[in-house]
Amino acid sequence: MQTAGEPFAACGVVTLTTDFGLRDPFVGVMKGQLLVRHPAVRIVDLTHDVLAHWPAEAGFWLARSFRYFPRGTVHVAVVDPGVGSARDFAVVEREGHVFLAPDNGLLAGVIETAAAVTLRRVEPVALRRAGIETPSATFHGRDVFAPLAAELSAGRMTPADLGAPVRELIPGWLEEPVVGLGQVSGSVVTVDHFGNLISNIDARLAAVLPHPAVRVAGRELPLRRTYSDVRPGEYLALVNSFGVVEIARAERSAAEGLGIDRGAPVVVFQK
Amino acid sequence: MQTAGEPFAACGVVTLTTDFGLRDPFVGVMKGQLLVRHPAVRIVDLTHDVLAHWPAEAGFWLARSFRYFPRGTVHVAVVDPGVGSARDFAVVEREGHVFLAPDNGLLAGVIETAAAVTLRRVEPVALRRAGIETPSATFHGRDVFAPLAAELSAGRMTPADLGAPVRELIPGWLEEPVVGLGQVSGSVVTVDHFGNLISNIDARLAAVLPHPAVRVAGRELPLRRTYSDVRPGEYLALVNSFGVVEIARAERSAAEGLGIDRGAPVVVFQK
Amino acid sequence: MQTAGEPFAACGVVTLTTDFGLRDPFVGVMKGQLLVRHPAVRIVDLTHDVLAHWPAEAGFWLARSFRYFPRGTVHVAVVDPGVGSARDFAVVEREGHVFLAPDNGLLAGVIETAAAVTLRRVEPVALRRAGIETPSATFHGRDVFAPLAAELSAGRMTPADLGAPVRELIPGWLEEPVVGLGQVSGSVVTVDHFGNLISNIDARLAAVLPHPAVRVAGRELPLRRTYSDVRPGEYLALVNSFGVVEIARAERSAAEGLGIDRGAPVVVFQK
Repeated sequence: MQTAGEPFAACGVVTLTTDFGLRDPFVGVMKGQLLVRHPAVRIVDLTHDVLAHWPAEAGFWLARSFRYFPRGTVHVAVVDPGVGSARDFAVVEREGHVFLAPDNGLLAGVIETAAAVTLRRVEPVALRRAGIETPSATFHGRDVFAPLAAELSAGRMTPADLGAPVRELIPGWLEEPVVGLGQVSGSVVTVDHFGNLISNIDARLAAVLPHPAVRVAGRELPLRRTYSDVRPGEYLALVNSFGVVEIARAERSAAEGLGIDRGAPVVVFQK
Repeated sequence: MQTAGEPFAACGVVTLTTDFGLRDPFVGVMKGQLLVRHPAVRIVDLTHDVLAHWPAEAGFWLARSFRYFPRGTVHVAVVDPGVGSARDFAVVEREGHVFLAPDNGLLAGVIETAAAVTLRRVEPVALRRAGIETPSATFHGRDVFAPLAAELSAGRMTPADLGAPVRELIPGWLEEPVVGLGQVSGSVVTVDHFGNLISNIDARLAAVLPHPAVRVAGRELPLRRTYSDVRPGEYLALVNSFGVVEIARAERSAAEGLGIDRGAPVVVFQK
Repeated sequence: MQTAGEPFAACGVVTLTTDFGLRDPFVGVMKGQLLVRHPAVRIVDLTHDVLAHWPAEAGFWLARSFRYFPRGTVHVAVVDPGVGSARDFAVVEREGHVFLAPDNGLLAGVIETAAAVTLRRVEPVALRRAGIETPSATFHGRDVFAPLAAELSAGRMTPADLGAPVRELIPGWLEEPVVGLGQVSGSVVTVDHFGNLISNIDARLAAVLPHPAVRVAGRELPLRRTYSDVRPGEYLALVNSFGVVEIARAERSAAEGLGIDRGAPVVVFQK
């Protein structure tokens, strides 16, 4: 997987995904640094409430969301318990989009689901060329990622300017679904605002089963098309709008009702 | 009410009102889809914390907020427990603004308070013309509303392109205030961040009473001009900056202090 | 401190700092009013979760954040328990940036840390010239601050157009750190999303001590470089990325662990 399939041509859009929350000005000053270097940048918040220390969630959402943005978008993700330690900055090119993140496994979800991808690490010379001399030890989002994203989104630097291609980055720490005889075993990656339990099982893995059902938290649920296919309060499984299997409860929170959370096993099986 | 009073001329601004919260990337990917079709779009979040399954709140805030945006703004509101079921997409034109929402009563507040308004439902041919072929069953915000808003805000489609005028849309389910002899009876529509209880009683309804006072949660409160007219901790009623009667507690939460919430009755009476 | 050091030249960027939260459309309608008067304005949210009635936090963050924005930015801050009472609107010019806020001590942090600054109060004639006739008694963010910020950021008005320089504004109510023999005594100004306790002690005050350590909540903590210098769960003090002394707990919340909050004393001393 050493080719991104399509060259990156900056469109001026930057997305931000962090665990910074919106209570403090951290996200705001990242935007300030983007505007200082690229006054015409268009910035979109993807989410700033990724669970701290659960970078897999950021990678999952990025992999499932990036296609809804214009080609040429720069996606910055900072979930970084190891900030200040000697870890690298990762650059991933895929389908005309660029992803920047700490090299801590965060982007595994983007890499693993790609047919073609180019991986790089930011080289010290690239930081110097971008005028990033001595970043703070605690806020690389502002001091490294925002400046690099500004240079990329303004078209002044290309991914190739950041470093030579590398064979691999730090691997992710979320197991991929296991495909067995008549079943697929995965897990809950994230729980959304409505309490829906979102798994890492892609619809295509489930589609090989002629009559799929879902086993979760000791229950067996039919695979439905949409929330309103069952009555309020009833549980259901469905392929959600991001193409993965989701466990929901109509007009209620499935997470609260079932008492499970991130990491819980989910099995799609042949009924 | 079959005329909008003033033609819509797109100004490039889109507002978003949903119950999606900001914890997940749902709002972000809606913005991505807006940018894909309309790279120069200006997007403003109105709120993403409308109570799920309380669409009246979204309609109330839209009706009270839209005038603070430039004429030619497209206002998208998605609070949609029935997503995926066979409900229509509503289009309302009022005073040079356009509103898009599920046809589930959400826009009732915008319609009822208007002197002139044009109502439409999005016709299948309009979806096809906009290149919206097979929306997901669960995320119409991304797959239908964002593309339509992009086409409208870019000036490539007009409200008339979306469908022929209709006589009415699905009605709202919040009762309008009742004007009686020497009193107006309404209810709490929403509770703001500060705990202020905001009613659906327009200032003009209260203005006919020479000495109005407010009855709420077993108390009688004088109608004041502003929060600092009473001492910290004291309750007051006032006409708030959106032109409706509000019950507040200076430097405290009235909702917590009075122990009431949305739906609670509020009466303005002649003292 | 009667000179701002550098003239203000509008760059079209406005930052917003309030205690309005994001649950209601208050911030959204402020943005609407900015767009009505200045369609090309670039708006960045700094934070909308300043503790109501703790304006010192807003001033602290502004003073520590503004330099990460382009020169020529207009910074609007509204934390205003006294809205509607007879208090003035303050204008501060510093290093090519302009700050607008209620004259209630909010901007003290910006003023006190400046080498050169120009202070003004908005004069009634300036409001009239900006077409601001009768603001609501409860929402000056929308009715006064947004219009003034739009005029300034569009370059149609200058700070000098708002009022003549004044000698001082209403003072802040947070004590500045006290420098003693071999120690500096300050306090916790804010607690961030991660539970880090952020003090008002500038790194330069601590730097005069050859072997500084920090005393807080009955503990003595060494001053480290970054979070990953200690093991998960251990406490540390560090100079954070905003240049002040911070008390943290690696991969945990120091605020919860130590059981302290805003206002708690922090002492940097010679070990």
